[in-house]
Amino acid sequence: MYELTVRDQMMIAHSFTGTVFGPAQKLHGATYVVDVTFYREALDADGLIVDIGAARSTLASVLGEFNLTNLDDHESLAGHNTTTEFMAKVVFDRLHQAIAEGRLGPTARDLQRMRVTLAESPVAWAGYEAAL
Amino acid sequence: MYELTVRDQMMIAHSFTGTVFGPAQKLHGATYVVDVTFYREALDADGLIVDIGAARSTLASVLGEFNLTNLDDHESLAGHNTTTEFMAKVVFDRLHQAIAEGRLGPTARDLQRMRVTLAESPVAWAGYEAAL
Amino acid sequence: MYELTVRDQMMIAHSFTGTVFGPAQKLHGATYVVDVTFYREALDADGLIVDIGAARSTLASVLGEFNLTNLDDHESLAGHNTTTEFMAKVVFDRLHQAIAEGRLGPTARDLQRMRVTLAESPVAWAGYEAAL
Amino acid sequence: MYELTVRDQMMIAHSFTGTVFGPAQKLHGATYVVDVTFYREALDADGLIVDIGAARSTLASVLGEFNLTNLDDHESLAGHNTTTEFMAKVVFDRLHQAIAEGRLGPTARDLQRMRVTLAESPVAWAGYEAAL
Amino acid sequence: MYELTVRDQMMIAHSFTGTVFGPAQKLHGATYVVDVTFYREALDADGLIVDIGAARSTLASVLGEFNLTNLDDHESLAGHNTTTEFMAKVVFDRLHQAIAEGRLGPTARDLQRMRVTLAESPVAWAGYEAAL
Amino acid sequence: MYELTVRDQMMIAHSFTGTVFGPAQKLHGATYVVDVTFYREALDADGLIVDIGAARSTLASVLGEFNLTNLDDHESLAGHNTTTEFMAKVVFDRLHQAIAEGRLGPTARDLQRMRVTLAESPVAWAGYEAAL
Repeated sequence: MYELTVRDQMMIAHSFTGTVFGPAQKLHGATYVVDVTFYREALDADGLIVDIGAARSTLASVLGEFNLTNLDDHESLAGHNTTTEFMAKVVFDRLHQAIAEGRLGPTARDLQRMRVTLAESPVAWAGYEAAL
Repeated sequence: MYELTVRDQMMIAHSFTGTVFGPAQKLHGATYVVDVTFYREALDADGLIVDIGAARSTLASVLGEFNLTNLDDHESLAGHNTTTEFMAKVVFDRLHQAIAEGRLGPTARDLQRMRVTLAESPVAWAGYEAAL
Repeated sequence: MYELTVRDQMMIAHSFTGTVFGPAQKLHGATYVVDVTFYREALDADGLIVDIGAARSTLASVLGEFNLTNLDDHESLAGHNTTTEFMAKVVFDRLHQAIAEGRLGPTARDLQRMRVTLAESPVAWAGYEAAL
Repeated sequence: MYELTVRDQMMIAHSFTGTVFGPAQKLHGATYVVDVTFYREALDADGLIVDIGAARSTLASVLGEFNLTNLDDHESLAGHNTTTEFMAKVVFDRLHQAIAEGRLGPTARDLQRMRVTLAESPVAWAGYEAAL
Repeated sequence: MYELTVRDQMMIAHSFTGTVFGPAQKLHGATYVVDVTFYREALDADGLIVDIGAARSTLASVLGEFNLTNLDDHESLAGHNTTTEFMAKVVFDRLHQAIAEGRLGPTARDLQRMRVTLAESPVAWAGYEAAL
Repeated sequence: MYELTVRDQMMIAHSFTGTVFGPAQKLHGATYVVDVTFYREALDADGLIVDIGAARSTLASVLGEFNLTNLDDHESLAGHNTTTEFMAKVVFDRLHQAIAEGRLGPTARDLQRMRVTLAESPVAWAGYEAAL
């Protein structure tokens, strides 16, 4: 299996609901370093997994919805704790939709799996991975 | 599949038995940067894979058994070369037991897999991964 | 000149005032990876620059004032843009006071310089350095 | 499953064919940070996945074929775009052959899987993984 | 003294002249991870060392002259070995000129020092630092 | 001022004397990631700060005296706590002597400053810097 990863980041504010979160129930924030890995069994005719330029710009576009905002204000996230693992799935779903819409190019429809990880600090990160 | 990783470290002395180890047969030491990844299919009701505070403190407790010691002096490790890969399995087993004892909280019993890696330097690391 | 650095982190929300900040005028957040470097000409009698345990716990205490909070709510920061460079100076000043109060141990009073850097992402960081 | 990773690097020039590559069609270059992960179900009698010394020297030998050269000049690569993902497979195949030839020691024949990743920058890397 | 660093990268081909370079006399390449640090004694009225958006875009523009090219083909570099340390000075000079031209904003003229480092691999980097 | 840094590592055991060290009074160990920075005002005729090959091999030779040993057994270190900051000075002195002996090449005698840092973990490092 081949794999390609691109990295970007976003800076957000948020708060959590539930006593398990302790002081993180208050409004605070995070820099999320976001890695997206694309998997496919064979390379395309150009020797590529996916057009890396399209992958980068689409990831930047997906993160742009959240970057420099307060996640508590996003209607599409309402009713959820925007934990690192939850946000990894949100980014995964946005990118999955982008692939379906052809925004990563026609050959991206041959991708078999995708993995998204968000590092909230040098000592903690979370992710979501699934078949496409 | 969702995943969450936490990082900690320990500083140990040890020596190896066997000519394959060359100069590492003598007493030397290592800083192990320890990453533990927890995997589960679905998030819990709080949007979490595992209580990150419990995960961190349990990992610190497990590493505390070995940190700032000479592994050659541990009866529980006697008769084994405490290679990086061997120690990854030791930390895995200690954490597995902690999960069974409920030390990572009740929802941690729904974890499906776990992976432990120990980096002995920026150019070499080893790990152990298995279903729970 | 000898130097010793310890690293910790904090996760905060904040917003900025001024059109130069563009979208960062809205409430957002950051993980700051904080490095503090202590400088001195000669080691103490134990071969140390500073008691590393005291340095770590004091740094954690200083960051604890801000970690998991919204910097916009801190009275002591009111009237300032809490930029990364500004916050580096704030952490520097808090640590400077801690040294004066003897919280890093008596030999810490022989430190000659200190530098604090805050990394807001893998591609941007800022700091403040001065004689003590 | 146990895993062991060793890291090395190579510095190469190359150019690409195909309009999808844009300005990268011109001669340029890259430092590839190369990670090779070896997987096996059980440790050998010494507590090892593979002889790490043999793994390092064999990896260095494989990379030595390409390091400090222009990939466009290699006959064995002719007719291919030497993308990061393509080169990951090339390194994988060279190492696979080395294992078959016994260059990683006799117990290396019990390795089950191998993964090679090449990081072309801090924000992009690619790899190839397969059973052995 | 305050400091702010921004990071970017470029991927280049080049060759060296002189027996001291050994195999690096042949055409090869590198990814340079480029860090630029700006120093000033006091923050501006917004609490900034320099407009980080202008700093990033100017750095990208300077690196764009060299990124994805063969340095051996640049007339402005002819007659020089484009070593990592030499290229750090080239980037420094280009940024120095950009500051003088006001491309980093009017307050950037109050910068006191600048440092440019180029990392050619995780185990080697070089830089140039001077007063402005 | 120009600067060049090369990185290597060593893995050692040691113990400390003095109650300030707490549990680190017992035998333990560390991986030290060692960075050596060479400074000079002008490049040599080849465009270099120092012959990087000679710098690497000399550093490896210096670290080879300590790598995979117990520092408590070295007569040359007897009577000292081999703290990270102390060992930085030891490596500095060994390299200083190597430069004086011409082991880094004749132009290395024009180096103005040198800095050695030893990272004992991702959250703590120490160093020594001085004019040559």
